[in-house]
Amino acid sequence: MSDVRVAGTGVTPFGSTPERTSRDLFARASQTAFEDSDVPRDDVEAVFYGNFMGELAEHQGHQGPLMAEAAGVQAPATRYESACASSGAAIREAVVRIRNGEADVVLVGGAERMTNLGTAGATEALAIAADDLWEVRAGMTFPGAYALMAQAYFEEYGGEHEDLAHIAVKNHENALTNDKAQYQSAIEVSDVLEAPQVSSPLGLYDSCPISDGAAALVLTSEDYAEDNDLEAPVAITGTGQGGDRMALHDREYLARSPAAREAGAEAYDDAGIDASAVDFAEVHDCFTIAEVLAIEALDIAGVGEGISAARDGRTTADGETPVNLSGGLKAKGHPVGATGASQIAEAATLLSGDHPNSEFVADATTALAHNAGGTVASATVHVLAEVEP
Amino acid sequence: MSDVRVAGTGVTPFGSTPERTSRDLFARASQTAFEDSDVPRDDVEAVFYGNFMGELAEHQGHQGPLMAEAAGVQAPATRYESACASSGAAIREAVVRIRNGEADVVLVGGAERMTNLGTAGATEALAIAADDLWEVRAGMTFPGAYALMAQAYFEEYGGEHEDLAHIAVKNHENALTNDKAQYQSAIEVSDVLEAPQVSSPLGLYDSCPISDGAAALVLTSEDYAEDNDLEAPVAITGTGQGGDRMALHDREYLARSPAAREAGAEAYDDAGIDASAVDFAEVHDCFTIAEVLAIEALDIAGVGEGISAARDGRTTADGETPVNLSGGLKAKGHPVGATGASQIAEAATLLSGDHPNSEFVADATTALAHNAGGTVASATVHVLAEVEP
Repeated sequence: MSDVRVAGTGVTPFGSTPERTSRDLFARASQTAFEDSDVPRDDVEAVFYGNFMGELAEHQGHQGPLMAEAAGVQAPATRYESACASSGAAIREAVVRIRNGEADVVLVGGAERMTNLGTAGATEALAIAADDLWEVRAGMTFPGAYALMAQAYFEEYGGEHEDLAHIAVKNHENALTNDKAQYQSAIEVSDVLEAPQVSSPLGLYDSCPISDGAAALVLTSEDYAEDNDLEAPVAITGTGQGGDRMALHDREYLARSPAAREAGAEAYDDAGIDASAVDFAEVHDCFTIAEVLAIEALDIAGVGEGISAARDGRTTADGETPVNLSGGLKAKGHPVGATGASQIAEAATLLSGDHPNSEFVADATTALAHNAGGTVASATVHVLAEVEP
Repeated sequence: MSDVRVAGTGVTPFGSTPERTSRDLFARASQTAFEDSDVPRDDVEAVFYGNFMGELAEHQGHQGPLMAEAAGVQAPATRYESACASSGAAIREAVVRIRNGEADVVLVGGAERMTNLGTAGATEALAIAADDLWEVRAGMTFPGAYALMAQAYFEEYGGEHEDLAHIAVKNHENALTNDKAQYQSAIEVSDVLEAPQVSSPLGLYDSCPISDGAAALVLTSEDYAEDNDLEAPVAITGTGQGGDRMALHDREYLARSPAAREAGAEAYDDAGIDASAVDFAEVHDCFTIAEVLAIEALDIAGVGEGISAARDGRTTADGETPVNLSGGLKAKGHPVGATGASQIAEAATLLSGDHPNSEFVADATTALAHNAGGTVASATVHVLAEVEP
């Protein structure tokens, strides 16, 4: 089974660019990825593209072939939609395809245009990731759903808003050096605690922003990378996917994410490692509480211990296992369809030493990326590893 | 490499059931597929689901986990969207996954709820499969696009509306015995020619209907089928996918479908056959002209010769290579996300002898299914073969 190499990455600045179409954004990200990779577009055999709300934001479905064209690629293309884990799902399929010898070179990525909908419009569009009949029509939005999960967590394991605030502070701090990040501004715990409340206990600074952006990856087989002397020092060595009931009320626990645990266990097994091998992780922190649930599900923190990880400095840049060195969704931004691919791009450049924050993980050999959809009814996890020279 | 077996199929009646949700439809199709397969739901390792316009018709994205739940399955689930080829794309991934040993049992399928939008609303929603910026905003709808393709075909290769009419007559005739078909009514050439014009040269009877429906397949590895003594006499032996420019004006020819040709060539090569081995085919006849373009791209008819195939009786039930024995999209109906999976279900039951129209293909060993998205900017092709006892 061939290893999968990350040959090139491209991420647009994340932020508010309502005037740019998603095809513009993806063209830009893929241009950077191709330049970074030294792989000619003609070698691409398939395109795997993640997008979530294109039908609502741009009246545009069928984005697979559209984005292949925007990227200047002539190859079969498919769009994957798994809510906020859309490009995670696309990456998973690309990895499977390459390592089984079905393709040597693929383009993977995702994009989302959201700010043109306005904040209320985007929040309403995001709600299609929840169960329309039984959640959305009852008034549920995602800030509300994650607030319920936070409250359940506090009840079951303890913790308080101030613990969550340290996650936001950490992720903003990490984003200071990331010029792609939507927010390059330091915040303090008091800022989080004093910010307007969105849905108790979550406030404005517990929530990721509405963002536009795109991310693209050129992935190749090991053989292709070696035959073409590519500089591709990072491999994707493990992939996993998990699923859960769609609606919160159908779950046994609100404060656990079995889909992420399932995806993580599969990815660890696939990579032949356990969680102790993970040097740093990019996880899906759409809200601060989501980072807690993620690191617990991925065994980076014990159950009930994730809440204090940032506050205790275990997941800060200089901690034992830095989490979201890119700034995470919280500060880097969350253009939904781009997020999963951007996590892989950030983790790969952190590992290869090309990221401003690489200094914090200079000895790292193994990283993890976790992408989640909805209230984690879907999750994908990928393990990345430095290739031994 | 393991062969992929069709262990069970389930298709709801196609038609107008605006009061039924897509989850209701898919639950029903998958229930039938599981009953038909003798495979316990607990054995399912992944769900591959195709849907096109759920965001617009039901305000519902993230349908992967929702449909896994509707089917009573606990497994990771992903939604594939490739316009009208959505479940074709899902099947392709499922096939790749099984034959590389990554899964032994999967549930694949798709559903679409459309009639609740009304005819104008559904036509508008369908248009998101075209390029919004450069086609839809200029007034293009799919009947208009396929009419342009038909006009280009007539100019390049000759032919007339009456040739197309024979395709509609044939597909209605084939559907007479199919109790899942939306239209079980015979029509005559004069009905087609005298029907209201939709977009010259296409009239009402050249166009598939707006439909609700779902289709599901239980696919397994060869080993699983044999170890469990399943009655699974049909295998998927070839898969292919092709892509093209999204907008018609970016193509060199309007009267050819290179994406279908690419998908077909790959599927034939994958199955180790050529077109001459195909005993019958289910092709994507969203409009009568689409069947012409499809059979030419798939080498079932020579270029310029597809137009007369139905009229000359080469593709009728008793012809050399029957096409759309199910009734096709034209008469069976076209609930978009379900179509690709329903084609495989129809072809498999035709091959196994369990279809009312099996009598026409009693000696058949090899079938083909072709699913197309938009104006064939996406296409998938699958080859099915009777398993030797």
